[in-house]
Amino acid sequence: MTKIEPRLPKGMRDLGPDDMIVRNKVLACIRTVFERYGYLPLETPALEYWEVLTGKYGEEAERLVYNLTDHGGRRLGLRYDLTVPLARFVASQKQLLKPFKRYQIQPVWRAEKPQKGRFREFSQCDVDVVGSASMLVDSELIAMTVEVISLIGLDHFEVRLNNRKVLQGMVQYAGIAADRTADVCQTLDKADKVSRPEVEAELGRKGYSTDQIGPLVRVATITGDNQSVLEQMTERLHGIDIAREGIDELAQIMSHLEQMGVDLDRVRIVPQLTRGLDYYTGPVYETFLTDRSFSSLGGGGRYNGLIGIFSDEEIPAAGTSFGLDRITTVLQETMTDQATPHTDILVAHFGADVLPDALRLVSHCRRAGFRTELFFDEAKLKKQFTYADQRNIPVVLLIGQDEARKGTIQCKILASGQQQEIAWADLVRQLQNLLQK
Amino acid sequence: MTKIEPRLPKGMRDLGPDDMIVRNKVLACIRTVFERYGYLPLETPALEYWEVLTGKYGEEAERLVYNLTDHGGRRLGLRYDLTVPLARFVASQKQLLKPFKRYQIQPVWRAEKPQKGRFREFSQCDVDVVGSASMLVDSELIAMTVEVISLIGLDHFEVRLNNRKVLQGMVQYAGIAADRTADVCQTLDKADKVSRPEVEAELGRKGYSTDQIGPLVRVATITGDNQSVLEQMTERLHGIDIAREGIDELAQIMSHLEQMGVDLDRVRIVPQLTRGLDYYTGPVYETFLTDRSFSSLGGGGRYNGLIGIFSDEEIPAAGTSFGLDRITTVLQETMTDQATPHTDILVAHFGADVLPDALRLVSHCRRAGFRTELFFDEAKLKKQFTYADQRNIPVVLLIGQDEARKGTIQCKILASGQQQEIAWADLVRQLQNLLQK
Repeated sequence: MTKIEPRLPKGMRDLGPDDMIVRNKVLACIRTVFERYGYLPLETPALEYWEVLTGKYGEEAERLVYNLTDHGGRRLGLRYDLTVPLARFVASQKQLLKPFKRYQIQPVWRAEKPQKGRFREFSQCDVDVVGSASMLVDSELIAMTVEVISLIGLDHFEVRLNNRKVLQGMVQYAGIAADRTADVCQTLDKADKVSRPEVEAELGRKGYSTDQIGPLVRVATITGDNQSVLEQMTERLHGIDIAREGIDELAQIMSHLEQMGVDLDRVRIVPQLTRGLDYYTGPVYETFLTDRSFSSLGGGGRYNGLIGIFSDEEIPAAGTSFGLDRITTVLQETMTDQATPHTDILVAHFGADVLPDALRLVSHCRRAGFRTELFFDEAKLKKQFTYADQRNIPVVLLIGQDEARKGTIQCKILASGQQQEIAWADLVRQLQNLLQK
Repeated sequence: MTKIEPRLPKGMRDLGPDDMIVRNKVLACIRTVFERYGYLPLETPALEYWEVLTGKYGEEAERLVYNLTDHGGRRLGLRYDLTVPLARFVASQKQLLKPFKRYQIQPVWRAEKPQKGRFREFSQCDVDVVGSASMLVDSELIAMTVEVISLIGLDHFEVRLNNRKVLQGMVQYAGIAADRTADVCQTLDKADKVSRPEVEAELGRKGYSTDQIGPLVRVATITGDNQSVLEQMTERLHGIDIAREGIDELAQIMSHLEQMGVDLDRVRIVPQLTRGLDYYTGPVYETFLTDRSFSSLGGGGRYNGLIGIFSDEEIPAAGTSFGLDRITTVLQETMTDQATPHTDILVAHFGADVLPDALRLVSHCRRAGFRTELFFDEAKLKKQFTYADQRNIPVVLLIGQDEARKGTIQCKILASGQQQEIAWADLVRQLQNLLQK
């Protein structure tokens, strides 16, 4: 038989133990906060009918959906995001109690060109509220974002906030046709990465006149503290109803956040923030690191038109998403101390004679809550210590015939080389001290 | 635009909040035990190269793998189990420290005929040790099984244990050609569900003679306590080397389990247990409920030939798998008491005037660790209480203008209808009593 190469398809990756342990830590923080806010878990299948999956996306996205024909000849696709499955789920549940507050953490697949740090399979962590138009929803989603990122242990971040209605108002104020809003937003969204003249030049190349670009960019680049930004926007966009509505919503959110006790320094109103996707209809926000690459940790907004695509009615909804890969990578980079051990104790042994004592010792340690491994094979002590060392296990316990007779255990701390003989009765307490548990 | 039907493909399902909460509880128990034994998490991609996925399975299985062609024309398939990806991972890691102890919890896809309780997408929970032939591995996997099922809270179960080598010995003892072992095992495996005469009849139909069937079935149906079963097998299969080896391994496992302090009443040697798959080479085991349908909760065994398929060497390995769906279903059936609430507290409110106090209250409760929801929309109190009732939320807190002035909160217990006014300072303590937290 020809040997099969153990290769992975392009854009795919394994998540080994070192990645998975940090990732699981991040997920535990995310789930804790979601549940504290009363959100409920949901999982949907990876495979959906092609027409369900692609009903919402443009042709561009359709190209990126993995498609297949099942054994019964039905055309299926792999989940592209978690929002369309949510819409499909909500439409299929006749008795669903609303507001429906769900979170969903599952992989999605996109046949995009693989890039450094971008894969064709990645996990999304989405949290959404379906069935309420209240700004309390949007406020709560932002409060949760601040709480999640803080709990994960990242210090330098801010949530940038804007409103699609304000952006629509800006377009109107600049004398640009309403149906060009998406086109304008696409350029404005870059204003964070490129300079103001470059934004103006791009708008020029797109065919907008200087009379349009001037006012537009002036409003989009308003800066100051949140109160001042709201006041300047109000003044400039005076008389434009849609802008007024959007500014009111932003003011409401800021007021709710304050009453919830959220640190307002974490939230900054940025009039040029647009968020890529077309489907947003109200507040939009995105979390950025402020101490390095300014990379995005995730974001969301209100999308009142989307959840109803499978229903006969418009259903208000808002949600946000956490970039699990990005957050995990950032956390791994900030963990400057030695790798966290995954196992506390290795029980080494010298073969059949003392094996019963070694097995008793392993169980004793596990019952006391220590993550404990037994070395399986008969091997020289040196090999067993090398294993502990390579696995970054801090403590090795040993029972020889002497210790078995005396009822003691040899305990070696690998970092210091220090070794001591401990009585069975003192073991748990001593290990708790050593391992700071 | 035509409305798209929110349908799911055949054999697929959503896991709504009620399922997910029980499932997450089961997964938390499984992960706790795996980590206590020093096993490391791994995740692999859903999509693998077709030739990697199908190198091991027979034609039968190949038919069940979902296949697709990616945008670059490569033939891929959806993961069919977690063992082949483990073998591929191990072969691709040149520096992997062995023994490699990994656990993996991910969905797999099989285009099988859907049946009640069987789906085309389901999650597997696998735990395996790669790189050790020691019976300590097999013993540890059985000890973990007992610990997991006990921690989940299921009382009536047993792990049935056998050894493929003993089965090979039985086939030899019966004068049947060694290459018929799989065929014989397939029938013996049913001996649990059908009567002894039916097993004999099926073996007859398969062409085995009475002289072969008699001795085979006599050994396969040996009963008694574990010690007695081992003795009877030893006596009957005397002089057959492979059987001797298998019986010795079983005796070693029983002795290790005793030394580890595992309740031996949980483990029963059953000579007719075969486990379906062809690739097992040593001990095999399967966990069954004993108080009802005798349904299987999962199982595993040693498979020394499989992990090496992508390498140049044979790599010893053993592993076991937990049937997450089955365990979740069984647990849901045994939960006789009222559905567990997913949220502790609903904060109801009467609109703008007292909203700041309500928001402060929500944050206060969340910080104290209670899972707390705010009712988002302005609505009559009756509607807010109905929501709490339907969501099974036990406590509703309320602030009206009176309470806001006095610095108190109205607290209503939905089950009893009892209502009391509580001062802010006493709130957390009182809620801890009420919610028994």
